[in-house]
Amino acid sequence: MTTIYPIAAEARIAALGLALPEPMRPPGDLALPFAMVRIVGSRAIVSGHGPQAPDGSLAPPLGKVGRELTEQQGYEAARLTGLSILGSLRRELGNLDRITAWARVFGMVNCDVGFHRQPAVINGFSDLILDVFGPQIGRHARSAVGLYGLPFRFPVEIEAEVEFR
Amino acid sequence: MTTIYPIAAEARIAALGLALPEPMRPPGDLALPFAMVRIVGSRAIVSGHGPQAPDGSLAPPLGKVGRELTEQQGYEAARLTGLSILGSLRRELGNLDRITAWARVFGMVNCDVGFHRQPAVINGFSDLILDVFGPQIGRHARSAVGLYGLPFRFPVEIEAEVEFR
Amino acid sequence: MTTIYPIAAEARIAALGLALPEPMRPPGDLALPFAMVRIVGSRAIVSGHGPQAPDGSLAPPLGKVGRELTEQQGYEAARLTGLSILGSLRRELGNLDRITAWARVFGMVNCDVGFHRQPAVINGFSDLILDVFGPQIGRHARSAVGLYGLPFRFPVEIEAEVEFR
Repeated sequence: MTTIYPIAAEARIAALGLALPEPMRPPGDLALPFAMVRIVGSRAIVSGHGPQAPDGSLAPPLGKVGRELTEQQGYEAARLTGLSILGSLRRELGNLDRITAWARVFGMVNCDVGFHRQPAVINGFSDLILDVFGPQIGRHARSAVGLYGLPFRFPVEIEAEVEFR
Repeated sequence: MTTIYPIAAEARIAALGLALPEPMRPPGDLALPFAMVRIVGSRAIVSGHGPQAPDGSLAPPLGKVGRELTEQQGYEAARLTGLSILGSLRRELGNLDRITAWARVFGMVNCDVGFHRQPAVINGFSDLILDVFGPQIGRHARSAVGLYGLPFRFPVEIEAEVEFR
Repeated sequence: MTTIYPIAAEARIAALGLALPEPMRPPGDLALPFAMVRIVGSRAIVSGHGPQAPDGSLAPPLGKVGRELTEQQGYEAARLTGLSILGSLRRELGNLDRITAWARVFGMVNCDVGFHRQPAVINGFSDLILDVFGPQIGRHARSAVGLYGLPFRFPVEIEAEVEFR
């Protein structure tokens, strides 16, 4: 068994110059009485995240892919959502190199009727995860589906689960 | 490590006078060939539940939040959905004090276009769980998203997973 | 403890003459950088699958249940989706008799507004699983909900999780 990606996730993030955003700052008065990451044994269960700016505020553009956003803008939103999830996981685990396996990714696209390329949007997330963690740890099961509405008019929301040591 | 909530879930339910409903009685002739709770090892995986009246019948109002239901009525529906899930878990586990951790909560809101406050609706569920189980056992990962349609015109449907001993 | 179904899944599939399709052949140029099944410990996490023809191409009819498809056609699509998932699991595990428990099933129906019989559609999947694996191994938690859009205009998409040895 040869390891294809000897570069660790933290080193890879540094090499790529990726900026992980601050904790989400939801607009307005909305209470969010849950954990962004819930640890159960060796599982880290990741709540639904959306795209964020580096300071934790919601990253525009907001709205529906296929209407307010192009497919490419949806891809970028999914990539930003990935950075947001990595930020939450680093805060919870201390170090992303503790992650031993990506397990499940559930990608939700806030889309207009007639938009059927949800996988192309969620690829913005999968490409990031594979780039940072490599094809062994980064390998994941995935669904990419079209939602009718998402909180805050997020164009993309992703929940996930990883294994860690 | 101090335990903040020494009150056990069963005692808390009794103190709050909460009524857990009977098993769901779906209307009409629809076969539901699955388990409301599936045990796998120490995991109890909870099927999608909706709001029920104490006798197990569907609890009105039904329909879409933002159209047939206000946000507050959606919150109440999410709370009733929580009681329905607690009823199923007690029937399966015998005693809710066997639950050691809430893990994942997936909250689905049957919503009208333009409704973006799904988290405020699903808070009806999270507030109940935290009230009954406290902030340690009750801590959970969560998504709260907008669905286009739910069975029986449920305004809210929630699936979940807990750990138990 | 008596075993109700001594017939093994592989023998049952052969007896029923079920044809498990080839790997999915997505149309066009869409990259799908994820695993159809992800193994994590004793868990096999199954990505969202849709209905496929035996050669792996998308199985028509495509579109929304309640508009392009009748409820019965939706049921058939869910059954085909089940065969597609069994094909992916056999390729990953080598033999479906390694499965010790079906755990979670998340059934998504691409539906028209006003269609509320998502459970009747996803029964096409549950009936197949129970027929092949019997009521003990085949027992599963399930949600069946209405999505606004699915990739490739799938009428049904299902993700799942099983335990195996």
